[in-house]
Amino acid sequence: MNQHDAVEVITAKRDGGELSDSQIDWVIANYTSGEVADEQMSSLAMAILLNGMNRREIGRWTNAMIASGERMDFSSLSRPTADKHSTGGVGDKITLPLAPLVAACGVAVPQLSGRGLGHTGGTLDKLEAIPGWRAALSNEEMLDQLEELGAVICAAGSGLAPADKKLYALRDVTGTVEAIPLIASSIMSKKIAEGTGSLVLDVKVGTGAFMKDLEKARELASTMVELGKGAGVNTVALLTDMSTPLGFTAGNAIEVAESVEVLAGGGPADVVELTVALAREMLAGAGVTDIDPADRLTDGSAMDVWRKMIRSQDGDPDAAMPEAREKHVVNAPGSGVLTRLDAMAVGLASWRLGAGRAKQGAEVQAGAGIVWHARPGDEVTEGQPLFTLLTDESERFDRALASLEGGFDIAPTGSDEATSYSPDPLVIDRLA
Amino acid sequence: MNQHDAVEVITAKRDGGELSDSQIDWVIANYTSGEVADEQMSSLAMAILLNGMNRREIGRWTNAMIASGERMDFSSLSRPTADKHSTGGVGDKITLPLAPLVAACGVAVPQLSGRGLGHTGGTLDKLEAIPGWRAALSNEEMLDQLEELGAVICAAGSGLAPADKKLYALRDVTGTVEAIPLIASSIMSKKIAEGTGSLVLDVKVGTGAFMKDLEKARELASTMVELGKGAGVNTVALLTDMSTPLGFTAGNAIEVAESVEVLAGGGPADVVELTVALAREMLAGAGVTDIDPADRLTDGSAMDVWRKMIRSQDGDPDAAMPEAREKHVVNAPGSGVLTRLDAMAVGLASWRLGAGRAKQGAEVQAGAGIVWHARPGDEVTEGQPLFTLLTDESERFDRALASLEGGFDIAPTGSDEATSYSPDPLVIDRLA
Repeated sequence: MNQHDAVEVITAKRDGGELSDSQIDWVIANYTSGEVADEQMSSLAMAILLNGMNRREIGRWTNAMIASGERMDFSSLSRPTADKHSTGGVGDKITLPLAPLVAACGVAVPQLSGRGLGHTGGTLDKLEAIPGWRAALSNEEMLDQLEELGAVICAAGSGLAPADKKLYALRDVTGTVEAIPLIASSIMSKKIAEGTGSLVLDVKVGTGAFMKDLEKARELASTMVELGKGAGVNTVALLTDMSTPLGFTAGNAIEVAESVEVLAGGGPADVVELTVALAREMLAGAGVTDIDPADRLTDGSAMDVWRKMIRSQDGDPDAAMPEAREKHVVNAPGSGVLTRLDAMAVGLASWRLGAGRAKQGAEVQAGAGIVWHARPGDEVTEGQPLFTLLTDESERFDRALASLEGGFDIAPTGSDEATSYSPDPLVIDRLA
Repeated sequence: MNQHDAVEVITAKRDGGELSDSQIDWVIANYTSGEVADEQMSSLAMAILLNGMNRREIGRWTNAMIASGERMDFSSLSRPTADKHSTGGVGDKITLPLAPLVAACGVAVPQLSGRGLGHTGGTLDKLEAIPGWRAALSNEEMLDQLEELGAVICAAGSGLAPADKKLYALRDVTGTVEAIPLIASSIMSKKIAEGTGSLVLDVKVGTGAFMKDLEKARELASTMVELGKGAGVNTVALLTDMSTPLGFTAGNAIEVAESVEVLAGGGPADVVELTVALAREMLAGAGVTDIDPADRLTDGSAMDVWRKMIRSQDGDPDAAMPEAREKHVVNAPGSGVLTRLDAMAVGLASWRLGAGRAKQGAEVQAGAGIVWHARPGDEVTEGQPLFTLLTDESERFDRALASLEGGFDIAPTGSDEATSYSPDPLVIDRLA
């Protein structure tokens, strides 16, 4: 593997050139093995961020990361597989009702998830609020559960795309996270190595999302769709709004509770809408077009899968959920229509209350988080509870309250703005 | 020093912003101490290379690197000081005759030099070909020699700008050498910390130079002149041609011999021209305008200083110089006028013969190198010796010969090209 050297690869990209297939294979393999040093990969990552990569380069980069580790194989399962990936949003608990719902429609969902870092929560952190539930499964346990129940949400093993794992940690500390080629290849290398037959991407756009800008989100989505299709995975992306948080809760235990409401046939309209929209895409990708997933929320079959899925991973679906020790209520400062509820403000508040972690490996509080009692378009009355802040440590309230400042608008009753306000659509576009 | 963090500084430059004084001070101080990791500095260096820095940023960056180490002080000397820095060229032995020449005119020359890496030789490597000569002096030895003889050429101590030393080694392996703000601040931080009163920069342009392009060389020169003046150092830059190598030799012992010819009042016309031009600038910068340095080459006074300077550092100026064990002559393939002799081709040949090193810390051969028997504008006759290649290891000839291929042109006698050819001027421009 000595046909290239690191400085040659770095300067090629630095000077605006295209990397050859051989250069990409060489640099990923040698970075994984440690021959290419962190300081060399980080200057290359910055050159990629600033000078870009074309679709061929991104595809090859993705394949090289897949080749750095093991690939899973679900071909022995008796049903087709479909997976979903969200780029991360505030109050985004969709995976929790979605996986059992799609399983209840006959498609297997192998949902390998991560923990949260920063203002967006992690799926595993939420499920770990359920007493007894465990995230770590062996490959055999995972396959057995998928065959039997059709749904598994568990921690991704370290064998999938180890190059990505190493590169992701490096990008985090070197200011090179925000490179679309590296984001797309990071997500898709894991999803393709995971071996799903079809994939739906939920690419979030807005203040609370990683991508604040619609055009960049669209570019990321279309890059990922092309990567997926190129690898033989049936891939579709929905661009969805993340200027407003999803549902009425952001946290761990409280998001599980809200998900269970959806599985019980109720729950917030927006969470139901997005869950069903994503379920339809996953089913279509897996070739199932004769079932309306909305029915499986109301007939209890999705809830049945959920309960079995939690039990199968040693959780108790009937246990009382952890509650935060301290509570602080913020009342509405005026009467009118809520016209804005900023996802980033809410996400930061939840994170500062202890629902998220500031450093990799840190603990999160199961009971911490924030509940908002109105969504954009709802009428509010001065003095009514607008937010309930939850944490185990009351000294966290001040900084959480600071992050909510300026994070919402109430248009006075009777004003033009109040009368004419209507919320933006949740699903902005679909790329296939 | 926790008012900033590395990712904040990196992303500011990545996104095209200006770094504040405080950000620059913080990142240099913390890189020197190890709080900012190599992989963070390398992505920052790439962002600087691609997005640039303005003059204020470069000035602050330079000052921060100076502040990372000690500063020297020559104010106790009885004469003014002047120094020269060359950005590096092939056959560039100018420092050897220049330092004793300027000293012979009454101005002290503290020439802290380095070893070569790559195709351009290092001043210390050349002088070390002289039996007994030693490069390492204590600060006290250096000051004593400067006071007594007026000239010292020795190794730069590790106490000057340690941040630059660390950053230079990092840039070398991360594809970030070619950033003008980083080149300028690297050179000038050492020269300003060294404490010289005036400074002449020899910025080379052409195939054998670091800067191939006149506009970039001009930008580098003007950036350095401004940095020097801003730090109170009388600074002037000459832009000089490096498409053709200097003199008739590139190597170690053979360049010392050619320098001694110049000090004896002879030597190649181009080496004499550049030595005298740089000497005039150094003298003017130090306020000496009534002496013509050319006279001091012919009257033997520069040679007197040279002999004392070599002796003072334990070298024997009368010793026989080391000679290479193996020799290979290349004859002229045709008759006519030599119209091109490529500096990079010659520099690579010399390096491959063993005069330079491929890795830091490696040994060089004192006797290795290349002699060319004609310069552009000279007539050559088919079959006459054109190059003499010198090395201790005959297996090196093949690769050295390969680097000379296509490295020169001979226009046939009587052709228009031969008749009309005239070499380009050596000194292209002067920036003050």
